[in-house]
Amino acid sequence: MVAVEQHGALPVDLAKAYLLLNHGPVTLVSTAHGGRCNVMAAAWTMPLDFSPPKVAVVIDRQTLTRELIEASGEFVLNVPCRAIAGQVLAAGSRSGRDGDKFAALGLGALPGTLVGAPRVEGCVAWLECRVIPEQHNEQAYDLFVAEVVAAWADPRVFSEGRWHFADDRLRTIHYLAGGAFLASGEAFETPSGLGS
Amino acid sequence: MVAVEQHGALPVDLAKAYLLLNHGPVTLVSTAHGGRCNVMAAAWTMPLDFSPPKVAVVIDRQTLTRELIEASGEFVLNVPCRAIAGQVLAAGSRSGRDGDKFAALGLGALPGTLVGAPRVEGCVAWLECRVIPEQHNEQAYDLFVAEVVAAWADPRVFSEGRWHFADDRLRTIHYLAGGAFLASGEAFETPSGLGS
Repeated sequence: MVAVEQHGALPVDLAKAYLLLNHGPVTLVSTAHGGRCNVMAAAWTMPLDFSPPKVAVVIDRQTLTRELIEASGEFVLNVPCRAIAGQVLAAGSRSGRDGDKFAALGLGALPGTLVGAPRVEGCVAWLECRVIPEQHNEQAYDLFVAEVVAAWADPRVFSEGRWHFADDRLRTIHYLAGGAFLASGEAFETPSGLGS
Repeated sequence: MVAVEQHGALPVDLAKAYLLLNHGPVTLVSTAHGGRCNVMAAAWTMPLDFSPPKVAVVIDRQTLTRELIEASGEFVLNVPCRAIAGQVLAAGSRSGRDGDKFAALGLGALPGTLVGAPRVEGCVAWLECRVIPEQHNEQAYDLFVAEVVAAWADPRVFSEGRWHFADDRLRTIHYLAGGAFLASGEAFETPSGLGS
């Protein structure tokens, strides 16, 4: 893979894209269609397959994000860090129907490389996704399945298939409730005795 | 709700059960059917609805766990803590077809209260689940949808709808890869300025 830098991000091998979500961080879902774009917070997302990589994400039917995903068939899952936790909370508590959230939150939008949806500046990883239509899941559970067609990460915290947090402001974050988060904490390996 | 203690665990209001998984911890999936029981690790799981609470979890078709879930329609999602990270790793790297993993890993099995699957001792939260049959998802994506029918937590780390980690050994954990985990880290609230 040619390591073409994209605004400081480096490409992640698609077979390793699941590692960007494996530890359960909160995400921002960014979308665009017909001249409108939006960003919302989503904690209910997970990897669904390794290769080709797929993800599952819950997108409430009342959101503008849902409307833009249904119109475009595309979105980006952005993995934010502690430095922008305030914007993540705000992205989850106001609607894009009330005005451009990128502008309101002071979030930059970088162009997607393979999808029309933008990538959110200030995040530390990005998964560009194309929806695999699954009408029953979407209608019954607000559940979307998508294939990851491109993945990017900030090499300061993710490289060679591994997260490595040194700067606390660049740690990924996990949403609790009521405006509270947990930072991704201490990395450790388990005693080898049981890992047969 | 009557706070009937179950081996040190207290019941969690079903409407708040999603909070046990909202921050993306790794889980253990425990199962039982026809005199056999098993436990495996699952990082690919997420809440799917609030009330009644539902979860989504990926269960590979080659596992004994899959066989026991398909036969019983039930499982428990157990949320382990750092103290048993070695067992979590081992539970994810050997098959129950090679022998009783509870015994091999030294994990205790507590009876489920509303499902036949056991709860794993030493975990800090437990979601007792009944599968909502979704044949297409199961076949196409190894994806199971289930309703949470009972939820429990260790009050030392979760009470009144809130995680509160003091003892590092009781922190929930997030799986990276290759035997490495992240502990759930520092709790923080965001600046209120943006959270309109």
